[in-house]
Amino acid sequence: MDNPRLGMSILLIEGARVLGMTRPDDVTPDGAVLAEDGVIVALHAEAKRRGGEAAAAGRPVERVDARGLWLLPGFVQTHIHLCQTLLRNGPDDLPLLPWLKTHVWPGEAAHDEATLGVSARLGLAELLAGGTTAILDMGTVRHTDAVFRAAEASGMRVTSGNALMDDAVTNPAELCVSTEEALAEAERLARTWHGAAGGRLRMAYCPRFAVSCTDRLLRGVAARARSNGFLVHTHAAENMDEVALVAQRTGKRNVAYLDDVGISGSHVVLAHVIHTDEAERALLAARGTVVAHCPSSNLKLGSGICPVPEYRAQGIRVTLGADGAPCNDRLDAFAEMRLAALLPKIRLGPGALSAWEVVRMATADGAAALGLPTGTLEPGRGADFVLLDPGAGFADPMSWRDDPYGPIVYCMDRSHVVATFVEGVARYRRAEPFPLKPTAVEIESAVAALKRRRSQHNKR
Amino acid sequence: MDNPRLGMSILLIEGARVLGMTRPDDVTPDGAVLAEDGVIVALHAEAKRRGGEAAAAGRPVERVDARGLWLLPGFVQTHIHLCQTLLRNGPDDLPLLPWLKTHVWPGEAAHDEATLGVSARLGLAELLAGGTTAILDMGTVRHTDAVFRAAEASGMRVTSGNALMDDAVTNPAELCVSTEEALAEAERLARTWHGAAGGRLRMAYCPRFAVSCTDRLLRGVAARARSNGFLVHTHAAENMDEVALVAQRTGKRNVAYLDDVGISGSHVVLAHVIHTDEAERALLAARGTVVAHCPSSNLKLGSGICPVPEYRAQGIRVTLGADGAPCNDRLDAFAEMRLAALLPKIRLGPGALSAWEVVRMATADGAAALGLPTGTLEPGRGADFVLLDPGAGFADPMSWRDDPYGPIVYCMDRSHVVATFVEGVARYRRAEPFPLKPTAVEIESAVAALKRRRSQHNKR
Repeated sequence: MDNPRLGMSILLIEGARVLGMTRPDDVTPDGAVLAEDGVIVALHAEAKRRGGEAAAAGRPVERVDARGLWLLPGFVQTHIHLCQTLLRNGPDDLPLLPWLKTHVWPGEAAHDEATLGVSARLGLAELLAGGTTAILDMGTVRHTDAVFRAAEASGMRVTSGNALMDDAVTNPAELCVSTEEALAEAERLARTWHGAAGGRLRMAYCPRFAVSCTDRLLRGVAARARSNGFLVHTHAAENMDEVALVAQRTGKRNVAYLDDVGISGSHVVLAHVIHTDEAERALLAARGTVVAHCPSSNLKLGSGICPVPEYRAQGIRVTLGADGAPCNDRLDAFAEMRLAALLPKIRLGPGALSAWEVVRMATADGAAALGLPTGTLEPGRGADFVLLDPGAGFADPMSWRDDPYGPIVYCMDRSHVVATFVEGVARYRRAEPFPLKPTAVEIESAVAALKRRRSQHNKR
Repeated sequence: MDNPRLGMSILLIEGARVLGMTRPDDVTPDGAVLAEDGVIVALHAEAKRRGGEAAAAGRPVERVDARGLWLLPGFVQTHIHLCQTLLRNGPDDLPLLPWLKTHVWPGEAAHDEATLGVSARLGLAELLAGGTTAILDMGTVRHTDAVFRAAEASGMRVTSGNALMDDAVTNPAELCVSTEEALAEAERLARTWHGAAGGRLRMAYCPRFAVSCTDRLLRGVAARARSNGFLVHTHAAENMDEVALVAQRTGKRNVAYLDDVGISGSHVVLAHVIHTDEAERALLAARGTVVAHCPSSNLKLGSGICPVPEYRAQGIRVTLGADGAPCNDRLDAFAEMRLAALLPKIRLGPGALSAWEVVRMATADGAAALGLPTGTLEPGRGADFVLLDPGAGFADPMSWRDDPYGPIVYCMDRSHVVATFVEGVARYRRAEPFPLKPTAVEIESAVAALKRRRSQHNKR
């Protein structure tokens, strides 16, 4: 197994404007970062000195001349469906439940290991090329090893799990398994993948959403996750019809119901969380439950707008994610940051959420939510970075302001990403070949296979 | 004067998927476009035949092999401030009026011909690199020749004019001129530039907004524009404080007041138009007045959301624009299309506005609003195109749907633009040097000059 952390690799990035993301003014113009074995060991003058000493002592130091570039922590996206990347550019203009039933679920059900592997590689490549270094993912019901294998090869930090769907009434037959099977598959994946690749890969329990899951499954997940220290990743309160269905099934509001069965706490990431009442908001804050805000997806499916500044003011932890490709149709941290910053301004005025707060949500807050040792640039943190070229494209001038956060959020896009490092290893460099990305032929033959199997399912 | 239309130039683009934009199904897989002297003369099989004959007859035919690419009409943006491009990345989180007073107006007042030329070149370069081929621009009060000179050199279709600001009470002294001076400058610009570069350049009357203008100026503009066939370009009903100021000054709502003084009709483009009552909407529809929807700007300044689907249902003409760089901070038709498509879905559901309708607003509807012979690909139309590479970046797969509009609106961005043609001439090619774009040194020295003059103004 290719483990680039073996062999005491040393990386010295010099000359960049370094955004440490610990405080708004943690910006160093001619900064440096020294990483050993994937972990930041020194910054700035000390990094240059120790890196120089290591080189002088004959140790192999990879030096990156980053003059003119900006270095910041890699983006952390807390809600992704790699299994859906091959379903990109599906039907527009549908709300959540019809869109799931007509496009996403049949598409997911048609995956085998090969097509799922292509889907995951395509998504991981897109994420790395856009500066994302860690994700919380949700697989489909089967073949989740293919996601982990692609994640392993990609070099990204990936937490994923099989989608748990055990309610025969609400789920399509092809995606429904028994409660025991669902949990057993998660446990098998945990044994195989949790902590693999030096800890880069982890398993999370992924009950799809309250509508898809029996009460018994959700309680089983809650108990297992708590006793074994796993994350729980699910959707909640995304759509009014979903909220109504949950109320009909349980007599409770969606977030309140999840809390009731034990799905709450700082190890739980709930995607969307748009439609909540005051009691639910108080629960989210009190438990430390994490919200994954997915603004493109929420708009495209007409779900609503997550009240992010209100949540933050109440002490609710909010992070960012692109969701799956077909409701976006990108896996682009820049697009999500821009929308996350812009949307609250309509309701609450232009000062509703600052660019600093948004970049922080996409880095430090996301990493903290996933329990990752990343998200800021400090000694002891993982060496996960994105290098941006502010001179690429049309981001100039920059000199009306001192802080770099507005330009990142409003002005820059993926075209400014020069390289993305995870654990001190460049996993994407714009100027170099990127074999992780499947070829057009691989993509189209995988889609053709999905279509064939979808039509076979339809005939049954 | 460099006029590429002289000399009977012939352009044949072959092999592209051609989106004619006349109807949703006007999509030709292996299409072709033949243009002579900047005008489309034939399409598809006939274009190939006639282009081949011209080449066989020894006439110089520029052939573009566009296999694998998409060809569509260039984007038309109906509200731009080229004079503000150098003010990009200014302060965030301010509403309209404080933002104008603290950043935009002092910045505009500091321009001379040289800095304004750099600002215009930077904006025009960004627009061409993003597939925009025509704009309606608003200059600042002085030096507007510099905008027209840059526009002439860029090859883009540009309609612009000096910003008319004649109210000594509401305007900063540096940007306020007498009514007579304001109108005389517009007339001088019209004599110099209207119809120049073979009709590519045109003058429009640009009263800044009702707050900045005396009643006499607005009535003078209305009369002159009507009798001489000029466009009128202004802002209206962008912000609640602006609407309140207009009501205080005139006793009327903003759009109703403009109609009262004669600023309405199919030759009038009103930027933003967010806060309107039913009577104003009826007026907009009855007069054929054009709305320039600028969603990024409206969100960033916290202005509100223009009710686009409602306007369209009432027969109001809605087009798209990026506004100036500092309230966006991009001049990017893709960003505006994506937001224009996404925003109505929150309020009205995911089917509120289709991707086809949005691309049409950005092409045919924009061109019609400006009275340009472009916006669709048909014989007799101007040869203004954008070539997109759907295989660039991460837009695959495309094969779940037949139509190309959703991918353009939701998935693609400027990184997919391969080349932009105006009047049959490639004015931007990704793979080639782009001298229109000012260098970083030119940009920074122009910004330094603006800052110097701003601080001199402040001292006075």
